[in-house]
Amino acid sequence: MRTQAECYPCFLQQVVNTLEMMGVEHQRQCGILRGVMKTILRCPEDWSPPQVSAEVYGYIAEETGVKDPFREKKEESNRIAATMIPVLKEMIEKSDTPLLDAVKAAIAGNIIDFGVSHSFEIEDSKAILSLPLVVNHYPFFEEEIKESTTVLYLADNAGEIGFDSILIEQLVKMGKEVTVAVRSAPIINDATLEDARFFGIEKMAKLITSGSRAPGTPLSMVTPQFRAIFDQAHVVISKGQGNFETLDDAQRPIYFLLRAKCRVIAELLGVDLGSILLIKR
Amino acid sequence: MRTQAECYPCFLQQVVNTLEMMGVEHQRQCGILRGVMKTILRCPEDWSPPQVSAEVYGYIAEETGVKDPFREKKEESNRIAATMIPVLKEMIEKSDTPLLDAVKAAIAGNIIDFGVSHSFEIEDSKAILSLPLVVNHYPFFEEEIKESTTVLYLADNAGEIGFDSILIEQLVKMGKEVTVAVRSAPIINDATLEDARFFGIEKMAKLITSGSRAPGTPLSMVTPQFRAIFDQAHVVISKGQGNFETLDDAQRPIYFLLRAKCRVIAELLGVDLGSILLIKR
Repeated sequence: MRTQAECYPCFLQQVVNTLEMMGVEHQRQCGILRGVMKTILRCPEDWSPPQVSAEVYGYIAEETGVKDPFREKKEESNRIAATMIPVLKEMIEKSDTPLLDAVKAAIAGNIIDFGVSHSFEIEDSKAILSLPLVVNHYPFFEEEIKESTTVLYLADNAGEIGFDSILIEQLVKMGKEVTVAVRSAPIINDATLEDARFFGIEKMAKLITSGSRAPGTPLSMVTPQFRAIFDQAHVVISKGQGNFETLDDAQRPIYFLLRAKCRVIAELLGVDLGSILLIKR
Repeated sequence: MRTQAECYPCFLQQVVNTLEMMGVEHQRQCGILRGVMKTILRCPEDWSPPQVSAEVYGYIAEETGVKDPFREKKEESNRIAATMIPVLKEMIEKSDTPLLDAVKAAIAGNIIDFGVSHSFEIEDSKAILSLPLVVNHYPFFEEEIKESTTVLYLADNAGEIGFDSILIEQLVKMGKEVTVAVRSAPIINDATLEDARFFGIEKMAKLITSGSRAPGTPLSMVTPQFRAIFDQAHVVISKGQGNFETLDDAQRPIYFLLRAKCRVIAELLGVDLGSILLIKR
């Protein structure tokens, strides 16, 4: 998906939020914002938002000398997610529809704001497992998973990846060979190897980096190893908006699990803002 | 006031809203957004937000061929404001504190969203006249007005200028020689001569243009006539955020009537977002 008009103010607002979080002094923020605009203008107009973001956050890292400004936030998200997972796993173990419930748990990880720690109750789990899917291609998904051997799972954010581990574990239990791909370098709050290992994903599946240092998976950036797995896997599961923005025009079928978090994506998908989707494209 | 980091996403978001309102096709919006970023980068870093906006909207007018995209919206705001004014005037006529109430009416004009037409009731007027002023320099204002002969009134937006006319009329009733200054050219929804005349301001006061084609009054842009009146008037009343952003460092005392509509201004003034102020600076 190419960058839309509305993405431009959003890039800049996210940068302001990031610089604010980093405690960058206000006057200096202005200079960096102007540098960010120059960086954006150097990107081809048809790039996807995550491709542009990779350049923007690369510039900020260079300018501030901070390579992973979201490290602490990511660790906190992981810690909070970890407290929620046992209750969910227990409910899914008792469920008559464990795959569907694991899919819902994985989507819940895309929705929960891990910035706010609160005690996670059984009630919250029930709410998660009754999440309505606005576009619901689950019947196709279930069918294809049953017939498949190899699954490629594209992770999204820290914290969220803990919830992904529930679905990954479920797929492994069903006898699938699962490969989980994370970003190759820190970018915003996206999950890297460190976050995947926090949830022991390397023990249940094959864990790789995609080659992407963007908050998505631009195929122009991926490693040959990733590309081979991407092309050959029977099923590809893609989590979150960033992966969707970079893979919506890919030449193979993909199951996208995401929440439409901005108007651009909601409009593109023809759903209301905030809708939760499992969609095959 | 110089442009702050947070102003940059805000410029771009306002442009997206404007282009959307104008019905500019999405792909074309992207090109214009990129042109806007180039325009912003050509502006010196120490310019105020309204100075930058003047360049941005100048570029958009050139690019789209539409010189006054907010014309209809301004006319609608004027029409809606006009329906509200008689009730307010009547209450102020009966008031024991007509100057204070007229000030509150003028500030209300800065707050009301004229995009939403609704029947205006006596209750609404009462709410307006009981508006709390967070920074309240009214005692100084009343004192200075009493001792003065000449008043310069810097108008802000269409619609709002109808509410200003209530305060202007009150000042005239008190025997003041009032000059009202509006923008010299259409810029966003700011009031121009046309809007002032809609409310008959030219019949109660001296009506001039400031020379500004910015959504504010940058002294680098004003006419010699305006500058002379600005320097010599006993009291200057400045409405709205745009005028504040361009005159907060002016070398003469000014009474600013505004609502702090964004975080940058609220922080600068040390008040909560949304606070209503009558402040002498």
